[in-house]
Amino acid sequence: MVDDGMVLLSDTRTNAGLDNISTYKKMFTFEDPGKRIIVILTAGSLSVTQTVLAKLEEATESGPENKNSVFGPGTTLQVAEMIGALLSEVSVNFRAKLNGMAQSASASLIVAGQSVGGKQRLFLIYPEGNFIEATSDTPFLQIGEHKYGKPILDRVIQRNTTLQDARKAALLSMDSTLRSNLSVGMPLDLAIIKNNEFSFKEQTRIEAGDPEFLAMSEAWSEALRDSFTSIPISNDPS
Amino acid sequence: MVDDGMVLLSDTRTNAGLDNISTYKKMFTFEDPGKRIIVILTAGSLSVTQTVLAKLEEATESGPENKNSVFGPGTTLQVAEMIGALLSEVSVNFRAKLNGMAQSASASLIVAGQSVGGKQRLFLIYPEGNFIEATSDTPFLQIGEHKYGKPILDRVIQRNTTLQDARKAALLSMDSTLRSNLSVGMPLDLAIIKNNEFSFKEQTRIEAGDPEFLAMSEAWSEALRDSFTSIPISNDPS
Repeated sequence: MVDDGMVLLSDTRTNAGLDNISTYKKMFTFEDPGKRIIVILTAGSLSVTQTVLAKLEEATESGPENKNSVFGPGTTLQVAEMIGALLSEVSVNFRAKLNGMAQSASASLIVAGQSVGGKQRLFLIYPEGNFIEATSDTPFLQIGEHKYGKPILDRVIQRNTTLQDARKAALLSMDSTLRSNLSVGMPLDLAIIKNNEFSFKEQTRIEAGDPEFLAMSEAWSEALRDSFTSIPISNDPS
Repeated sequence: MVDDGMVLLSDTRTNAGLDNISTYKKMFTFEDPGKRIIVILTAGSLSVTQTVLAKLEEATESGPENKNSVFGPGTTLQVAEMIGALLSEVSVNFRAKLNGMAQSASASLIVAGQSVGGKQRLFLIYPEGNFIEATSDTPFLQIGEHKYGKPILDRVIQRNTTLQDARKAALLSMDSTLRSNLSVGMPLDLAIIKNNEFSFKEQTRIEAGDPEFLAMSEAWSEALRDSFTSIPISNDPS
């Protein structure tokens, strides 16, 4: 989340063990033109996140008076609170059933959006339903397999970073994660929302062979190798 | 581990909760001049690793006939097996006591070394005492908070990487980890062993204000920022 807007990026790989890999989208978007825009990103147990999203979608279709509609009255904060409560409810219900089988299921969500009259908001919702919000000190949030891609974001992202640079940093962060961890995989879903706009500036699925992504990935690899070579060795052990 | 030798690097931060941070070394070296050199790196529960190392040091001082001496007869592989068995024994003993208090303690080790007549070997020992070995396909091993620093190693380290480049990559990998995670901290311990040499090419403690490390870290940050800026934006969302 930068001053000009928000960049959201997710992969699509779901695995139940390494020999049971599937593609499921982890980005879900809701648009009430001119009034509200909400993006939900998911990580963790597919059974939990699919149930939460199915409930949210059903409630939203049934009308804004439904307490679980993302287009209900109130603020983006209230939407995040409602989604947190739903996540907690679904998780508790699942856990009660799974405990008997000594299995576990937990999930976390990112909820991003804006409601007319309010600011853009970006929340990370924990499995228990509580959440934290991005601030100018902590402009980005990550869920799931987040560590490999954090160093580039730590170095680049500030609140005054341009939207183009934020997009580039998100893609390069995901590129590092893709290279270092098998449980993260193409295609990617990318969404960009400009501040005070209630529609998507960009909403793309980036497929495995995408020439733009490949070129960016290759240019980054080459630049990193060049950077590595350029660092002087002040203490030569040879 | 590269063709020319091995680079070993550890931080020194130990924490039991964020308000109880201490400095303990995590690198332990054993030299039997001309015959064997062994380096042990530790991660995880300090109570487990200190007990294992205390037992190893006591056994090694008592003479090579002691079954837990790292200078006993046999190969580097046999030393790694002995250390794995000791780690497992200490862990099981601790766990039995801790289970009653609903606490946990586990640790993993890296054991690196060479015995005269054998090759350099590099092992990662799991808390259960079993281990894996570095190969030409997987030339580097990490324990502890390893994810932040893995992308740079994934991109740079191959078996034919020079020892100087391996040293640089290890330091830059640790630099990324230091920036992204509070539980990793200076000073660092660095050791370099050349192939078929039974002494240290370099053995240094790098303190927090070390000018070489600061210069390398700053040069890397600058090179990364320049690299980032140099990547073309093929799809401009503005």
